Amino acid sequence: MATYAVFGTGTVGQALAGRLSSNGHKVIVGTRNVADTLARKDNDMYGNPPFAIWQKDHPDVQLGTFKKAASLSEVIVNCTMGHGSLDALQSAGESELNGKILIDIANPLDFSQGFPPSLLVCNTDSLGEQIQTAFPVLKVVKTLNTMNAWLMVNPALVPGNHTVFMSGNDKAAKETVKGILNRFGWEDRNILDLGDITTARGTEMLLPVWVRLFGALKTPMFNFHINIAGR
Amino acid sequence: MATYAVFGTGTVGQALAGRLSSNGHKVIVGTRNVADTLARKDNDMYGNPPFAIWQKDHPDVQLGTFKKAASLSEVIVNCTMGHGSLDALQSAGESELNGKILIDIANPLDFSQGFPPSLLVCNTDSLGEQIQTAFPVLKVVKTLNTMNAWLMVNPALVPGNHTVFMSGNDKAAKETVKGILNRFGWEDRNILDLGDITTARGTEMLLPVWVRLFGALKTPMFNFHINIAGR
Repeated sequence: MATYAVFGTGTVGQALAGRLSSNGHKVIVGTRNVADTLARKDNDMYGNPPFAIWQKDHPDVQLGTFKKAASLSEVIVNCTMGHGSLDALQSAGESELNGKILIDIANPLDFSQGFPPSLLVCNTDSLGEQIQTAFPVLKVVKTLNTMNAWLMVNPALVPGNHTVFMSGNDKAAKETVKGILNRFGWEDRNILDLGDITTARGTEMLLPVWVRLFGALKTPMFNFHINIAGR
Repeated sequence: MATYAVFGTGTVGQALAGRLSSNGHKVIVGTRNVADTLARKDNDMYGNPPFAIWQKDHPDVQLGTFKKAASLSEVIVNCTMGHGSLDALQSAGESELNGKILIDIANPLDFSQGFPPSLLVCNTDSLGEQIQTAFPVLKVVKTLNTMNAWLMVNPALVPGNHTVFMSGNDKAAKETVKGILNRFGWEDRNILDLGDITTARGTEMLLPVWVRLFGALKTPMFNFHINIAGR
């Protein structure tokens, strides 16, 4: 079983680390500063617990620096806030990233003007592309970034068929990620490969309608389904 | 029965004008220059016929200037290319727009770098908002802009439930537009009101993923469905 580094200690990191661990993988969560992360006492803006509280229920999941987590892993999952993703990868160091798959779940959300957020990068570029360009040694696969964190690792929370998108330049890496998605509960017919990493522009730009749907529906438990004639 | 002005003579204008006419409405299509429009002989980039050919099968649909079309109508449907929408409305004249509903289907697509297009405006603004700001006399309702033209007026072309979004500041205008969507075949449960016109940022930003889905799926006959837990 592969060892996974999960970058980011918030809700998305917790959801991914917990699920990968319960699937039998060794998981090490990466953070900027371990002591700072463990010292946090407050719930986040959505009411989710700080990492130290969450970790009590997940004793098998380790915590380390980005560099330590990357060094021990075969696959890295980027669950940092989008504005900090490039820095987090930089601090892990290129030699620890070399040749690895990066599952990029981050969105470049800009909360500086309040809610709903806008995007820090979009339209003619995307965070997924920026990461792939800055770290050509990584095989970046953008996926899972278009839905609530708990739904990512348990698609049955929304009944029926609904879609998870995938973007990336490396076909073998996308096959590996597809297998990971399968083990989270995603059926092949609901995994939609859009093409190379530039297609991450499309999925990151779903976030502005996602946050407005969250506002209109009063629940985050929804997902996009691409309904296709004749299929 | 209300009289409709349909601004724009391309595929979207043809689809909307044809459907409104077959639903029993008087329809006048608006264009910049009537003689120029009728002189066009070539199919568009998607292989759809020029207006003069289309009109032979739709003899009840009139053609006039933007100003003439607006002056005769109670409701205006904006099917122009997004980069020309504000100019088209300007040439109709504010007095002809006063108090009317504008159903805005246009997307601010930028094809200057080829396919897939990017957006001319997005993220912290939208074409829907620009139109509402420039013409406060209009009641702008953004809708139908997230799908293929033929699907707009015949949702049964894609089986099952799928979603049409709606954004606008005027509740009564949205109720009127909902009735129009119903007569196109959209059931209430598939019409999703996102809120005021600023939510058009979300739906216009669906276009970058729409064009990439079109590329990946090799068909334009698909639509987004918002699948919600417990509903």
